[in-house]
Amino acid sequence: MSLSRKTSFEDVTAELVPKPSLQRMPWYLAYVGRLRLQGVANVTSTQLSRELNVDASQIAKDLSYLNVRGKTRIGYDVASLDNALADFLGFRRDHAAVIFGVGSLGGALLSDRGLEHYGLNIVAGFDIDSAKINPEAPVPVYDVSEHIRQISRLQAEIAILTVPHAVVQEVADMAVAAGIRALWNFTPHKLLVPRNVVVQDTSLYSDLALIYNQLIARK
Amino acid sequence: MSLSRKTSFEDVTAELVPKPSLQRMPWYLAYVGRLRLQGVANVTSTQLSRELNVDASQIAKDLSYLNVRGKTRIGYDVASLDNALADFLGFRRDHAAVIFGVGSLGGALLSDRGLEHYGLNIVAGFDIDSAKINPEAPVPVYDVSEHIRQISRLQAEIAILTVPHAVVQEVADMAVAAGIRALWNFTPHKLLVPRNVVVQDTSLYSDLALIYNQLIARK
Repeated sequence: MSLSRKTSFEDVTAELVPKPSLQRMPWYLAYVGRLRLQGVANVTSTQLSRELNVDASQIAKDLSYLNVRGKTRIGYDVASLDNALADFLGFRRDHAAVIFGVGSLGGALLSDRGLEHYGLNIVAGFDIDSAKINPEAPVPVYDVSEHIRQISRLQAEIAILTVPHAVVQEVADMAVAAGIRALWNFTPHKLLVPRNVVVQDTSLYSDLALIYNQLIARK
Repeated sequence: MSLSRKTSFEDVTAELVPKPSLQRMPWYLAYVGRLRLQGVANVTSTQLSRELNVDASQIAKDLSYLNVRGKTRIGYDVASLDNALADFLGFRRDHAAVIFGVGSLGGALLSDRGLEHYGLNIVAGFDIDSAKINPEAPVPVYDVSEHIRQISRLQAEIAILTVPHAVVQEVADMAVAAGIRALWNFTPHKLLVPRNVVVQDTSLYSDLALIYNQLIARK
């Protein structure tokens, strides 16, 4: 495995928006969405700062990436800000995704319609366990041998990886060869992929380690 | 809600180990665990660096937090490194946890025995939906009105929050009042908690936004 050919997500410098800004935006969206439901018309960055405990100047900078402007003393129009955030984050565009590994976590993601509201349209699952295969289900689950045909047919661009970590690199290579452009990796395995492929790690294990470490630090 | 009284996780400076180091350690553990299963005796930081695409000097620094030393040219003893990492990350201690919100994601975490191998012992769930209540299940699910009694009885210190984001602050306040010391927040709501309470955000929505943004950046 050559390092010149393969690299990780972190090495790619061509990011449109700083990662921390992108990670804060869903907080703003969640809060602004609630204000909108409550019929609130305007919100200032000072108010966002107080409620979300993020520095007001940081909030103003984060929101400057959006196509929306606040007014002095009045602040942002809540409906416009809500729309701008959801659009900017990609939550209103449809992104076709498949899941490799329909176990406990994979199965939950497959049946959780909640992610649809965030632009993730899970169109199929793949597994090696014949008991999991069900091409007639609302979201069909196919044998993994069908992945090339189905990914092409469904025009999926994202693969969610919830397989055992011992096989995840192999599955990632398969998915990329089948045309997948982004991998959402739920295993603790560090994936090596071609430079043009997106990798996003969601490591529940790292998060647990952070919790445990903080608990000790505060004892 | 006063800022002097409540603050967020990020503001607390008394961390034992840098967060990025802690987040990389589960990668090392996953890889070293596989080497151990394969019967490999030693591993060098150069080898780890090549396989995991992390700078070798960074790896040496990360591993310096552990009570294990490598030998020149031979590297680390695989079994010792595996044990040291699992111990250090807290994966071999038992941490009692409860789940608030036994929906799709909460239900999956409740029934996923996989997290047990990482020291998370989920001992109960709470919900407001009577159809979800089942005190006789392998992991019992109680009405949320019982949370104070059960958290105390089960000596739970971690609460996993998989409730709708509109109510998560209220649920977090309840959990903290019942004696919970760490909150694992799966909602996009930014929690405000007392300074001595740990908050770890696992935001699937932020991760999605990062994926979408990177996909656009590479088109």
